[in-house]
Amino acid sequence: MRPLDVLQQSLHKRVLVEMKGGRSYRGVLDAYDQHLNLVLSAAEEVVNDQVTPRGGVTLLRGDSIVYISP
Amino acid sequence: MRPLDVLQQSLHKRVLVEMKGGRSYRGVLDAYDQHLNLVLSAAEEVVNDQVTPRGGVTLLRGDSIVYISP
Amino acid sequence: MRPLDVLQQSLHKRVLVEMKGGRSYRGVLDAYDQHLNLVLSAAEEVVNDQVTPRGGVTLLRGDSIVYISP
Amino acid sequence: MRPLDVLQQSLHKRVLVEMKGGRSYRGVLDAYDQHLNLVLSAAEEVVNDQVTPRGGVTLLRGDSIVYISP
Amino acid sequence: MRPLDVLQQSLHKRVLVEMKGGRSYRGVLDAYDQHLNLVLSAAEEVVNDQVTPRGGVTLLRGDSIVYISP
Amino acid sequence: MRPLDVLQQSLHKRVLVEMKGGRSYRGVLDAYDQHLNLVLSAAEEVVNDQVTPRGGVTLLRGDSIVYISP
Amino acid sequence: MRPLDVLQQSLHKRVLVEMKGGRSYRGVLDAYDQHLNLVLSAAEEVVNDQVTPRGGVTLLRGDSIVYISP
Repeated sequence: MRPLDVLQQSLHKRVLVEMKGGRSYRGVLDAYDQHLNLVLSAAEEVVNDQVTPRGGVTLLRGDSIVYISP
Repeated sequence: MRPLDVLQQSLHKRVLVEMKGGRSYRGVLDAYDQHLNLVLSAAEEVVNDQVTPRGGVTLLRGDSIVYISP
Repeated sequence: MRPLDVLQQSLHKRVLVEMKGGRSYRGVLDAYDQHLNLVLSAAEEVVNDQVTPRGGVTLLRGDSIVYISP
Repeated sequence: MRPLDVLQQSLHKRVLVEMKGGRSYRGVLDAYDQHLNLVLSAAEEVVNDQVTPRGGVTLLRGDSIVYISP
Repeated sequence: MRPLDVLQQSLHKRVLVEMKGGRSYRGVLDAYDQHLNLVLSAAEEVVNDQVTPRGGVTLLRGDSIVYISP
Repeated sequence: MRPLDVLQQSLHKRVLVEMKGGRSYRGVLDAYDQHLNLVLSAAEEVVNDQVTPRGGVTLLRGDSIVYISP
Repeated sequence: MRPLDVLQQSLHKRVLVEMKGGRSYRGVLDAYDQHLNLVLSAAEEVVNDQVTPRGGVTLLRGDSIVYISP
């Protein structure tokens, strides 16, 4: 198994994405690429336990990502 | 779907762009490239809830971008 | 021996991964690639001695990693 | 349109360039390249609302740039 | 002599590795590559004069390294 | 004109170089390359308005440079 | 002259190397490469005017270097 296979298995499932700087996102993984750029739908932003819904799809830039977990 | 397809679908629509360092921009997406460099027109800059209009077009450098959302 | 051979030897064993910014993860190493992207299963996140279990698999982005140790 | 086309259209016009770290520059765009390295003439540096004129031409390194706007 | 020759000469000897962010490691250099990824065995972590032994081998990511010294 | 042409025109003239982190250098530009690595002779370092002369030539690493101005 | 020629001329002479984060090193330049990785012998580390001798040779990673001066 290669690390990106985890993203393939997580497609269309809810994931938690932790970003550099303390922000995190929860949403359904709709797409990814080899730079770890991600697209989440039905996303929520979590900063210091405060949750903000983000309608539509959100594109997260790969190089700001620390980890992705289900 | 690939992550950059989201940008293709967002062309000529309003987007919210969060930058590293806490600044964000709202505007109409006029152009993008594979580095996530973006061009917004009718852009507004938002820093700590303070909104500053930026006339004309604004070019945002891709490597300062955290996420792009509609 | 090359540095990545250590990861090969650690496959399916528990490792400790220290990230930039003071966060660390413990879990079983399920996969890695040449960018040091890692997949941990049964992972726990450790921040300031506080341990949070992370169910399922966690993908850690290589460029946020400081060190990996058994 | 591609993002760098905005720079082509801004050649010989006044632009505002916001840099990482809170500094910004206003001046006439004399040259650019694909790394977003820029040359401004008749430039002014703006830090915390304090304006310092910079005579001659100023070369701004692309990877310190956050955005460029007219 | 090229800089990486120093690593070749230090193989199987004790080294001190200073990392970005103020952490350092002492241990026996078991392996290295051209990215300065290093493997130390019998390593100790030193943070603010506090020493923590790290059993087994430790893989240090090259781009977090500031210097390596005997 | 390309941005690096400005460096060609500034050869053997005094320049001001602002670095990331608030340090700046004044000196005569003796050499440059495409990474913006610079060599200054008769250089002075300026930190918080304190000026320190640096005898001989000084090599400034390009990726720490914010701007170069005459 | 190209910037790296300065390193060639400084071989086997004492140099001062300023690193990102406020640390600096003085020592005899024994080797360098095109990434500005440097090897110093008889090196001293200087942090806040405190000098610590570093016996043997020290390998400094190029991307942490701000400037090199005689």
